[in-house]
Order: sequence, then structure tokens, then C-alpha cells
Amino acid sequence: MMEERLRKQLDFALEIDKEKNILRQTHLSGHGRRENDAEHAWHMAVMAYLLKEYSNEEIDITRVMLMCLIHDIVEIEAGDTYAYDEELKKTQKAREDAAKEKLYSMLPADQKEELTALFDEFEECRSAEAKFAHAMDNLQPLILNHSNNGGDWRAHQVTAGQVYGRQAKTKEGSETLYEATDEIIRENIRKGNIKA
Amino acid sequence: MMEERLRKQLDFALEIDKEKNILRQTHLSGHGRRENDAEHAWHMAVMAYLLKEYSNEEIDITRVMLMCLIHDIVEIEAGDTYAYDEELKKTQKAREDAAKEKLYSMLPADQKEELTALFDEFEECRSAEAKFAHAMDNLQPLILNHSNNGGDWRAHQVTAGQVYGRQAKTKEGSETLYEATDEIIRENIRKGNIKA
Repeated sequence: MMEERLRKQLDFALEIDKEKNILRQTHLSGHGRRENDAEHAWHMAVMAYLLKEYSNEEIDITRVMLMCLIHDIVEIEAGDTYAYDEELKKTQKAREDAAKEKLYSMLPADQKEELTALFDEFEECRSAEAKFAHAMDNLQPLILNHSNNGGDWRAHQVTAGQVYGRQAKTKEGSETLYEATDEIIRENIRKGNIKA
Repeated sequence: MMEERLRKQLDFALEIDKEKNILRQTHLSGHGRRENDAEHAWHMAVMAYLLKEYSNEEIDITRVMLMCLIHDIVEIEAGDTYAYDEELKKTQKAREDAAKEKLYSMLPADQKEELTALFDEFEECRSAEAKFAHAMDNLQPLILNHSNNGGDWRAHQVTAGQVYGRQAKTKEGSETLYEATDEIIRENIRKGNIKA
């Protein structure tokens, strides 16, 4: 019979399957359906590896990729909070903290501790790894939305101030990627996709 | 203006968004819809990290996670090949080789070379990392299918011989995970989900 430790790990692995049902506001390229959290996390992790040379600081890419992969698992319980929904954002931390405790408690204690610490590090956004992971969290939906002629920004009537407010974190992770971001934002302001 | 190197990397990042539209035969837990390749890759990479202690040999977990994340990108061009479709499997390598050349050529030459080598290493399944990544490629759909009372096996009338044939690779990556796999397979044979 399976050991208790492995049983817990497999139960957790099955539980996180639910992340594939958490929908984001971003649409896939080609004006596709809405993206889900698992797809977003996969895309961020691949991009982190491909773009690691642009990090402002030296980074441990394994930790960045892991942060990308797990950063939204809490949304299985807490739901997705749209980056520009100011009401939902007020309760986001409390909802996600409760979810974190519930979900990671399924794991053996050492892994609960490790993944909780990694999630907290991502949220605090102070380490070089967390800053680069946040740059991916911003850049990934930006390139999808840009490929869709800014459809998500238009649908939510997002302003330049809001977009720049959010993308400021990208600069902390990567000056180069922030320049590319700025180029994309300016183009979308010119096109009227983002309100000036 | 953006540098040519970064432009290529971002074009590739956008191209692989299409992996989210490649459907597999596996269904999500809770008898959900069919899973796509990006979700499968995300799930495998998280599981690889959680279960790395069970690898038969010492592994570089970063390389394992990367293999998990990219191993199905070729299917954007080549399509998914079901593990038990013997006809499609005859042409799988030729289709995937052409896809590999086309897709990875979008990247700067050094990254094309790196990711192509990593994909080939996964396919050859000789290194410790490739063997453990293959164990994840088998275990991940197994736990989903088991959670759905073997629905995918029943739908395709899969036999015990076929399942054991495929899962043999798991043993090369992890004896412990193979034991867990065997326990799950035997239960599904008893229930009639897999034909004895």
C-alpha cells in the first residue's frame, strides 16, 4: 500500500487540477476563449526561462519558474481577482491567505512550509526572483492582449494610468522588458485600445 | 525600438500560446472537459517538483521541469498523438521533427539549439531527467483518469497490456511511483475500467 506521504502528495496533485477551471479576464491569441490559471502559469514559466537574460538582478531560475507555476493555486479557493477590479482587490489578501492555509495543508509539513514560503515571497515581491516572476505575470497577458488588438483593455475601458500602475512592477524585475512593455502600451494608446 | 533578439523571443512566446488549443484524450477531474497540452505540461512540471524525492537517480530538477513544460510544443504543428493510437504513432516522429524545426527556428539560434537538444533528450529517454519527466507524462493523466473512474480507458477500451506497456517507462524514472501506478492499475482492472 502507498505510503501516507506519497498519498498526500498525490491528493494535492489531484486537487490542483481544479486550477484549470479558474478563468481569467485575458483571452487567448486569435480572439480565442478566456485563459485559465493553469495555462497562464505554464506560459509564464516558459517565458521566464526564455527571457531570464533580461532580469535586472541575478536570479535562481528554478525558483522563478516554481513561483510562476504555483502563484495562482490559491485561486482554486479564492477565485481570480482581476487586476483592475478595485472592489475585489480589497478582500483579495484575506481570501488568498485562507485558501493558502487550506490547500497547502494537504501536503506533508515540509512541503507545505516550502511552498507557502515561496508563495509569500512572490506576493511580497522583494526578492530578485519574485520581481522577475511578477514581470512575467504582467508581460504574459500583455502580449496576448496586444495580439488581440487590446480587446481586454477595451472591454474593461482600462486607462493608461491603470496599465502603467500595474506594469510598474515589471520595471523592478527587468528594465529591458519594461521598455518593450512601454512600446506596446504606447501603441495601444495611439490605437485607442487603452484610454489616454 | 525593440532589439531583434527580444522580438524573436516574444514572437515565439506568442506562438506557443496555441498549445492551449491542442486537446488531449484525457479528461479533467470531476468528469470535466478534455485537457489541453499547456495544462498537462503545467501539471507535470508542478508534480515533478513535488515528487522529485522519488526519482531513481539524482536529477537536475530545473531540467526536468523545463522538459515537462516544453515537451508538447511540437504538437502545435504536429497535433496530439494518443498513446494508444498505433496508426498515428507510426508517423509521429516525422511529424514532430518537422514541427520542431519550424517552431524552434523562431528563436535566436542559441535558444533554438538549447531547447531542441532538451526536447531530443526527452524523446530519447536515456538521461535521468528524461526518465523522470516521462514518469510524470504517464502519472499525470493516470491520476486524472483514476479520479474519473477510468472513463478514458473505458472509452477507448484500453487493455491491461497496453497500460502496462506504456507505464513501463515510469519504472525507469521511479520505482516508488511505479508501485503506486501498479496499485492504481490493478484497482482499475478489478473494477473493469481496464480490460484484463
